[in-house]
Amino acid sequence: MTTNKHSLLDPNRLFPADSASREIAIQLYNTIKDRPIISPHGHTDPSWFANNECFTDATKLLLVPDHYLFRMLYSQGISMSSLGVPRVDGGAVETDMRKIWHCLAENYHLFRGTPSSMWMDHVFYEVFGLNELFSPATADSFYDHISAQLQTDAYRPRALLDRFNIELIATTEGAIDELPHHRAIAGTEWAKRVITTFRPDDAIDPSREDFIDNVARLGELTGEDTTTWTGYLDAMRARRATFREHGATATDHGHPTAATADLSRSECEALFSKCLSGHSTAAEQELFRAQMLTEMAGMSLEDGMVMQIHAGARRNVNQQVFEQFGRDKGADVPSSTNYLDGLIPLLNKYGNETKLNIILFTLDETTYSRELAPLAGHFPCLKLGPPWWFHDSPEGMLRFRQQATESAGFYNTVGFNDDTRAFLSIPARHDVARRMDCRFLATLVAEGRLRLHEAEELAPALAYDFAKQGYKLS
Amino acid sequence: MTTNKHSLLDPNRLFPADSASREIAIQLYNTIKDRPIISPHGHTDPSWFANNECFTDATKLLLVPDHYLFRMLYSQGISMSSLGVPRVDGGAVETDMRKIWHCLAENYHLFRGTPSSMWMDHVFYEVFGLNELFSPATADSFYDHISAQLQTDAYRPRALLDRFNIELIATTEGAIDELPHHRAIAGTEWAKRVITTFRPDDAIDPSREDFIDNVARLGELTGEDTTTWTGYLDAMRARRATFREHGATATDHGHPTAATADLSRSECEALFSKCLSGHSTAAEQELFRAQMLTEMAGMSLEDGMVMQIHAGARRNVNQQVFEQFGRDKGADVPSSTNYLDGLIPLLNKYGNETKLNIILFTLDETTYSRELAPLAGHFPCLKLGPPWWFHDSPEGMLRFRQQATESAGFYNTVGFNDDTRAFLSIPARHDVARRMDCRFLATLVAEGRLRLHEAEELAPALAYDFAKQGYKLS
Amino acid sequence: MTTNKHSLLDPNRLFPADSASREIAIQLYNTIKDRPIISPHGHTDPSWFANNECFTDATKLLLVPDHYLFRMLYSQGISMSSLGVPRVDGGAVETDMRKIWHCLAENYHLFRGTPSSMWMDHVFYEVFGLNELFSPATADSFYDHISAQLQTDAYRPRALLDRFNIELIATTEGAIDELPHHRAIAGTEWAKRVITTFRPDDAIDPSREDFIDNVARLGELTGEDTTTWTGYLDAMRARRATFREHGATATDHGHPTAATADLSRSECEALFSKCLSGHSTAAEQELFRAQMLTEMAGMSLEDGMVMQIHAGARRNVNQQVFEQFGRDKGADVPSSTNYLDGLIPLLNKYGNETKLNIILFTLDETTYSRELAPLAGHFPCLKLGPPWWFHDSPEGMLRFRQQATESAGFYNTVGFNDDTRAFLSIPARHDVARRMDCRFLATLVAEGRLRLHEAEELAPALAYDFAKQGYKLS
Repeated sequence: MTTNKHSLLDPNRLFPADSASREIAIQLYNTIKDRPIISPHGHTDPSWFANNECFTDATKLLLVPDHYLFRMLYSQGISMSSLGVPRVDGGAVETDMRKIWHCLAENYHLFRGTPSSMWMDHVFYEVFGLNELFSPATADSFYDHISAQLQTDAYRPRALLDRFNIELIATTEGAIDELPHHRAIAGTEWAKRVITTFRPDDAIDPSREDFIDNVARLGELTGEDTTTWTGYLDAMRARRATFREHGATATDHGHPTAATADLSRSECEALFSKCLSGHSTAAEQELFRAQMLTEMAGMSLEDGMVMQIHAGARRNVNQQVFEQFGRDKGADVPSSTNYLDGLIPLLNKYGNETKLNIILFTLDETTYSRELAPLAGHFPCLKLGPPWWFHDSPEGMLRFRQQATESAGFYNTVGFNDDTRAFLSIPARHDVARRMDCRFLATLVAEGRLRLHEAEELAPALAYDFAKQGYKLS
Repeated sequence: MTTNKHSLLDPNRLFPADSASREIAIQLYNTIKDRPIISPHGHTDPSWFANNECFTDATKLLLVPDHYLFRMLYSQGISMSSLGVPRVDGGAVETDMRKIWHCLAENYHLFRGTPSSMWMDHVFYEVFGLNELFSPATADSFYDHISAQLQTDAYRPRALLDRFNIELIATTEGAIDELPHHRAIAGTEWAKRVITTFRPDDAIDPSREDFIDNVARLGELTGEDTTTWTGYLDAMRARRATFREHGATATDHGHPTAATADLSRSECEALFSKCLSGHSTAAEQELFRAQMLTEMAGMSLEDGMVMQIHAGARRNVNQQVFEQFGRDKGADVPSSTNYLDGLIPLLNKYGNETKLNIILFTLDETTYSRELAPLAGHFPCLKLGPPWWFHDSPEGMLRFRQQATESAGFYNTVGFNDDTRAFLSIPARHDVARRMDCRFLATLVAEGRLRLHEAEELAPALAYDFAKQGYKLS
Repeated sequence: MTTNKHSLLDPNRLFPADSASREIAIQLYNTIKDRPIISPHGHTDPSWFANNECFTDATKLLLVPDHYLFRMLYSQGISMSSLGVPRVDGGAVETDMRKIWHCLAENYHLFRGTPSSMWMDHVFYEVFGLNELFSPATADSFYDHISAQLQTDAYRPRALLDRFNIELIATTEGAIDELPHHRAIAGTEWAKRVITTFRPDDAIDPSREDFIDNVARLGELTGEDTTTWTGYLDAMRARRATFREHGATATDHGHPTAATADLSRSECEALFSKCLSGHSTAAEQELFRAQMLTEMAGMSLEDGMVMQIHAGARRNVNQQVFEQFGRDKGADVPSSTNYLDGLIPLLNKYGNETKLNIILFTLDETTYSRELAPLAGHFPCLKLGPPWWFHDSPEGMLRFRQQATESAGFYNTVGFNDDTRAFLSIPARHDVARRMDCRFLATLVAEGRLRLHEAEELAPALAYDFAKQGYKLS
């Protein structure tokens, strides 16, 4: 079945249905749709850009690494093994990539109304130029077409960076990562385009099974004595400097809560020792993470790195899936998050620093209007990140703008983050964000709440400038 | 005053105002508006269908049992007694049904903008064919017309089941209910159409004043020794089997929180003894309810019954009204509910069972996008029930779809529940749900977020198929 | 640059973009836009109306007292001192009012999409008749024009009350305020138009540094022995009586939480002594505030005053700003608020009193549909105040109606409060509320959820009547 182009990808998708707003949205969108992409926070694999090797096939590229896709399939009774997700124990899982691809095609209706289908459709029809609907009937031809194109030079990672008009992309690496792929491109033109981000959770979160080893490794990497509090902090400073050498302008912190703390030096020393002993309680681990957010803010004030806080994800909540398949397999759930009480210790110490830049993300949408926008609309150091993870979707984006703008304004936000490991979906994700922002602006204009020339200034700011400024990339 | 039909009941009510979306909504609605009604969860009285006697009058049928109506009247200073609500002490209350009906007419404006007026209007103009606006001026003629019609065969309960095109309706009975009305129709064609649901709260919730008696009665009914934990569980199993003989495919659990537990056998035995002693603390009662949700999930896995969890209602919060008029008099208020922490013990035990079906309901709308949709979008055993109680309304339905769909999709939902004891409002309630779902789908189509043929497949699924599948009725 | 009138202030601003709803909104708005303004709760300075002196200049009138404006400027790194906000230590701050005005002009884009720009634009173009866009280029001419007009009789406070069509305005004074300005107008025609409100937080909240002094002063003012619990309560009664002599029909209570309590007399006496000792704990202070809400409800039942509860603001959370610039400098943040558990003690005592009027306000929007509307839709003593503070905005108003109406109806609400100290913005704020309510009603009509004649009755009720009735002003 061949369908007309319109039904594959509506050129006016996501714009309001009423014609008055829609026309303004189209007009705004046309002025910004071709702006370069700034991707200041994400999880693509830097080896792709360092090695520039061809991707292998449709399934391995598009399905296996995408926990949005397999979480939904899993929710309908399809096993992880049958989707080729590797087992921790190395046990057998499905290896027939074409068969897995068919499973996706047979269940593609599950994604109706979700952003995954919008992203995948964009990949199919825009990136690969397919011109039929994805279905069990077309699964083979899609698989063959995509896998064949992936072997061509035009679909190598660097060529795609060009084609996607990605001006800059930041990857994310842990505190003890030696940055081999960023080292490989150091000194080349690519080093300005592919930068790293310092995400030290692995050496900050004492609840991790590998925390003690990671702190030891941190010492080895930096030559600091990380068995002492001072040495540990200096090792962090050293690693931040190394990351900056590889382009990093930001740190990132994924914590289960937004708790911060401001302990005395002796309290810090005792707490750090306890955590290193391997006998810390959950409350001590939480307090240590809390203290470290404040320490990281202090270091950001020293070295100018932008600090991102991604708080409130309860990760790997499915014990059986965690034991069999490991971390990050779609069993992550947002939790109620208290930013106000959480952030006060940090804000009391650094909240009025105009040179400090902290970007807040939330998975608890109730905090947009209740806590985050009022906080960002007052404290000089705070800005709001875009809707994150489960809320990185048309309705989620609309709720963010509707609930945050009136107290925080637009100028306390930092543009869009794709936050993805699904490289081919990056243009789709930025396009959704650009369309939704133009839609929001267009509605304000159509309702006489914003002047057209103001919307025309804001559209490129939201699509491009704020990301560069907010992450100090300009 | 006679008004034209349009002002009585807009044929395009609830559809979006803009013409592009509206036309699609109408088109979708026309394909599903005449589908039979599946009512898999509700509180109609099974004696109606067993005895098929005429209802008596407008007030007793439409007002007295409807706590949505008298809660609002009460909020404006109208006493329960004057509305004919029976007192616990048998004291005098208003018995002039016509006078009570007039009180409703004089205060009918209070319901503007609420679903009650939409449901009542549907009953007036569609079910009873009235053709004037309800007002003090027409109250008498409405009362006479309705009361007269109720004496005709066309308005007997079974005739209305036919006229309303209700294919199946489930009532809800407690653990110690002997199901006399379901027994009365056993073996007849009606037994396939009117089924029961197992709601064992009365023998599970130790905070009830009648818990100990109910557990004893449970033993008598089943011949099990319900003074022991094992006997108690076996008695539950026996009653589940009896309910299944009367058509039940589901259990239902109305708990104040979503807490679950997974205690050892000896802990369970000790806790059960404590609860039976009549000296349990509130925390022990909560823990017992929590443990019983997990036990019920285990039994569902054994016997295949679908498990519904209705969590988060704080019931009978008005102490004076409770003392004078008893339970369920409109003094129920939703409370903040933590599904994530609550459900983890149960999910750790059974969450990955693909043959287990748990349907979650909430009164805390903040959990749609933060907890429920992410949970249902991962765990194979979980599905989301429709908006419940205070949120079973046009705006409530819209928020549910807008907030749950992007993470859970449509296919982790189970269609509509009317959940009502107001029999005559059942068509109105399903019609509102169908219109709102068509509206939501139409908006997605108009905005290029869903293809028309996909919406055409989803509309009947949401209106009919998902309820049958989700409750194993097919 | 002169622009046409349309781009300065869209006559159809805030109405829905689609023409069907928009036309109904315009039609409704035209019937109520010229109704007099009832301002039953706010913070204007009564000396303005008593003395009727000219305001001095644009900056001192429009910017310095408006924490909405300087909080946003501060969030972007502009210091309080440079905005002329007085320091606690009397240290130097910017005194060049024209320079501060320029700072506002240069940063006016920050307010795009916020209600502040809508209010300011209304002041510029409607109140002062300016006909250019506000910008750095026009800042001087705006400043000169406004400052000059302020020196004319037409811009004196009383003339503005007339011009703004303000039928009645309530100011807000503390428990130990001697009401000099209200005394000054006593017996004149202005006393009926400018009334006070009793806000006793200063003598009720033991966490305040001046609590003990204030309680002592309360004794002096009333001749009661406020070192005893009984004398303290009698002093409150006396002050309520004095406030009523100056027009007050309402009390107001700004508490950090919605907690209420119902302690025994001996517990109250002990708690009061502890609080007066200066050694109370935070928990005891909270309990005292909680008990006092119940006491105040009891007094309202005695004297008929309407009781307002503004719960959930965490005030002055920026420690450094508080130390340098004092209270109420924009560092206030909403917090998660539990009305259900909080109010139960009070409701168990007085909830069913049909002569008691308690108006609830919230900064936690999640409580609209979860707690507040269900409570107000049952308890005779409860009504819902309009969206407050951060939520007093177009989107905030829409969320309030969308989330509260279906459970509470319209008739359990009390119209609009401007709640402002920015006198010149009062017409703008009421106009926004009137437009948004007409918009909400129009959408219901366009979607067949409300009849036009019902909307035509509701529009003036929401704009005018409900405020008079809800505050017993009629």
